[in-house]
Amino acid sequence: MLRKIVRFIEEEKLFYRDEKLLVAVSGGVDSVVLLHLLKEMEVECSIAHCNFHLRGAESDGDFEFVKDLAEQYEMDFYAKDFDTKAYAEANKISIEMAARDLRYNWFAELCDVFHYRYIAVGHHADDVLETVFINLARGTGIHGLTGIKPKNDRIVRPLLSFTREQILGYAKENHLQYREDSTNQETDYVRNKIRHQVMPVLQEINPGIRHTMTENVQRFREVEQIYNAEIEKNRKNLVIQKEDSLLISIAGLKDVKAPVSHLYEIISPFGFHQRDVRNIVESIYSISGKRFYSATHEILRDREYLILSAIKEQDEKEYWMEESDVEVDIPVHFKCSFLQRNPGFKFSTDPMIATFDANLLQFPLKIRKWKEGDTFQPIGMKGKKKISDYFIDQKFSLQEKENTWLLLSGNRIIWIPGHRMDDRFKITDATTKIYRLELR
Amino acid sequence: MLRKIVRFIEEEKLFYRDEKLLVAVSGGVDSVVLLHLLKEMEVECSIAHCNFHLRGAESDGDFEFVKDLAEQYEMDFYAKDFDTKAYAEANKISIEMAARDLRYNWFAELCDVFHYRYIAVGHHADDVLETVFINLARGTGIHGLTGIKPKNDRIVRPLLSFTREQILGYAKENHLQYREDSTNQETDYVRNKIRHQVMPVLQEINPGIRHTMTENVQRFREVEQIYNAEIEKNRKNLVIQKEDSLLISIAGLKDVKAPVSHLYEIISPFGFHQRDVRNIVESIYSISGKRFYSATHEILRDREYLILSAIKEQDEKEYWMEESDVEVDIPVHFKCSFLQRNPGFKFSTDPMIATFDANLLQFPLKIRKWKEGDTFQPIGMKGKKKISDYFIDQKFSLQEKENTWLLLSGNRIIWIPGHRMDDRFKITDATTKIYRLELR
Repeated sequence: MLRKIVRFIEEEKLFYRDEKLLVAVSGGVDSVVLLHLLKEMEVECSIAHCNFHLRGAESDGDFEFVKDLAEQYEMDFYAKDFDTKAYAEANKISIEMAARDLRYNWFAELCDVFHYRYIAVGHHADDVLETVFINLARGTGIHGLTGIKPKNDRIVRPLLSFTREQILGYAKENHLQYREDSTNQETDYVRNKIRHQVMPVLQEINPGIRHTMTENVQRFREVEQIYNAEIEKNRKNLVIQKEDSLLISIAGLKDVKAPVSHLYEIISPFGFHQRDVRNIVESIYSISGKRFYSATHEILRDREYLILSAIKEQDEKEYWMEESDVEVDIPVHFKCSFLQRNPGFKFSTDPMIATFDANLLQFPLKIRKWKEGDTFQPIGMKGKKKISDYFIDQKFSLQEKENTWLLLSGNRIIWIPGHRMDDRFKITDATTKIYRLELR
Repeated sequence: MLRKIVRFIEEEKLFYRDEKLLVAVSGGVDSVVLLHLLKEMEVECSIAHCNFHLRGAESDGDFEFVKDLAEQYEMDFYAKDFDTKAYAEANKISIEMAARDLRYNWFAELCDVFHYRYIAVGHHADDVLETVFINLARGTGIHGLTGIKPKNDRIVRPLLSFTREQILGYAKENHLQYREDSTNQETDYVRNKIRHQVMPVLQEINPGIRHTMTENVQRFREVEQIYNAEIEKNRKNLVIQKEDSLLISIAGLKDVKAPVSHLYEIISPFGFHQRDVRNIVESIYSISGKRFYSATHEILRDREYLILSAIKEQDEKEYWMEESDVEVDIPVHFKCSFLQRNPGFKFSTDPMIATFDANLLQFPLKIRKWKEGDTFQPIGMKGKKKISDYFIDQKFSLQEKENTWLLLSGNRIIWIPGHRMDDRFKITDATTKIYRLELR
């Protein structure tokens, strides 16, 4: 198994032996085996463990187990507690999605701060196949049939060519201890049904079902590539961005080979579902004037265009940051700290970090979306600038505009987090105390 | 249900009310309900029933049942017996494929002879979804995920928007009698597993699974359209036909976005499977000289091209037609008859029909594929022509060449069935007895 994993890592170019990895360890057999194999390979790695607090004492037991494992392996150990339910409620997403968001955001943060090149997770071949069936059952386009990729951005999956059986076998051979059932419950309910009730039936139909499904997935990946290329090629002819709206050409949609797919790829990022898309495509063959809504956006079937824009009230949500907060999670993730002004202080050029003259700030700070008429004084500039003009200069897409938050002190914008701070709040020679924010 | 089927037929443009249909009736609930609905709609239709003789007395019982039904409905009734097992063995295909081939060939024949516009079959919504899972389990590209189309050439499926439950409900309401389990056994084994063991689990995961899967299939159809268009667009740059070989450009394959898919679509009609395709694509990144085989063809990885050609021995199979045969099924389907020469006899211009001077023939006639050096005298021409030149003149594809059979009397070619007969065997004033062949 060691030899096979080495070959898989090489073939899929997952990482090089001298790169530092962060290994996500839940305590379950997959992650325990992954960790053991990486250790055998003498890869430099550390352990990260998320406690989602979804299963009470059991969750804490998992934490203790992984902590002991880290000590035994003499590896760095990071752990974090999450209030998964609150995050899910605040963002109106499922517990499962919340756990995934929280987990991957935190992993990315650890990588940035401690310079890990990749995050290794324990997904295996059975996960890939099960994921295809889960996606099918829940509704999917071609994307959902391409399973899980061995390498995706910073995430690497060295076990992806092994079956669950092989992993259990390895754990047994090497007398590895692990925690039973140490994954997220909601995913497990569905996944267990697929694993224990669907896959065995398919295996009776086709004893080589795992191999067949792996081949299917490889074929679907090629189909997806062709699909994506075609959609992207046509997108620029279909969509015009105009101020805060997307104009989607009705004539253009009628002209493309697969109008529903094209429209889906354009508007699904704004919360529209497959059934909405189908209704909207029907409307282009009918008279104008009809409106369609997602949770956050509306689409007007106008004469020549489908006009997509944000539902206004969404702009009015406000969030507050107290002086005492050291970390804020919602609606964006900030790390907050006060620093004394040292003689050697240097401005960070990282757009994710902003440093303010703390004495000029008025707490609590406010976080909200932009409004018509908002202005600020971009750092380094003398005069004021409309936020909307700044967005245009920076060629923000409609989606980027709408996803951008502003940070305010009183009624003045002090930072467009991730982009540009305000000149009036910058550190000067007169500054004694610094307020530092880091966006994650 | 009547109203819904009328709307479905209109929306999908299956047929017009005044078109004559042939309804495939197995005796099972689906076809019985279909027939009842078409009768209620006052569509002009006749009944066709295949007896595949796969379930002994039960098969005969189905036949009797459908015959009685036709009498009761006062409809024309066609029935035919098939030796399905022999056909499957002779053609090296599964019983299931054999039954499908035989059924649809015969239906097409009935349509031609008796001028039916379409063949109506009883597939319903559950069949579509089950078919997707059956295809997944057996291995498939995007095509296999698009289920069953409401209209495909001459086949129409008016029940495709109804679930099995709705069909059973309709049968009960209208007190319709039907035969239990009147379909092909092998299909049933797999289909029943999907129906009774897989679908209920998916329904627990997603109570709206049928609707979701229907949406999935609609999305996959669009993806398939995009996929097919891209493959077809690239095919002409990838493939050169040269005599009896296809040359597939290695540089071209390396250049396209999805080489495995492109190669699969090009070579799968020659009996190559997905795993072969993957191996062949690997070979293009390696040295030349390797050969790959399907049951009937070989591919040589040459320097610039993959060269696909038929395996020679396949050409040598011979079949015989006796003077007493009134019908031949293998390797092609002929109807054979002797006619007296009437004064009003007219030549048929249908290339599927040939009429010979019976006295010039030497029985048994031989059926075989063409060989290098074969010649004939095309009807209406004076001199001889090489078969290979005829193929070039007619712009036959490699596949058409290989699928074309020749009919010989002694060692002389008397007909290229479906294309051109030989001048030497035509009806003349001296002809007294005619031998007529009809190709199906």
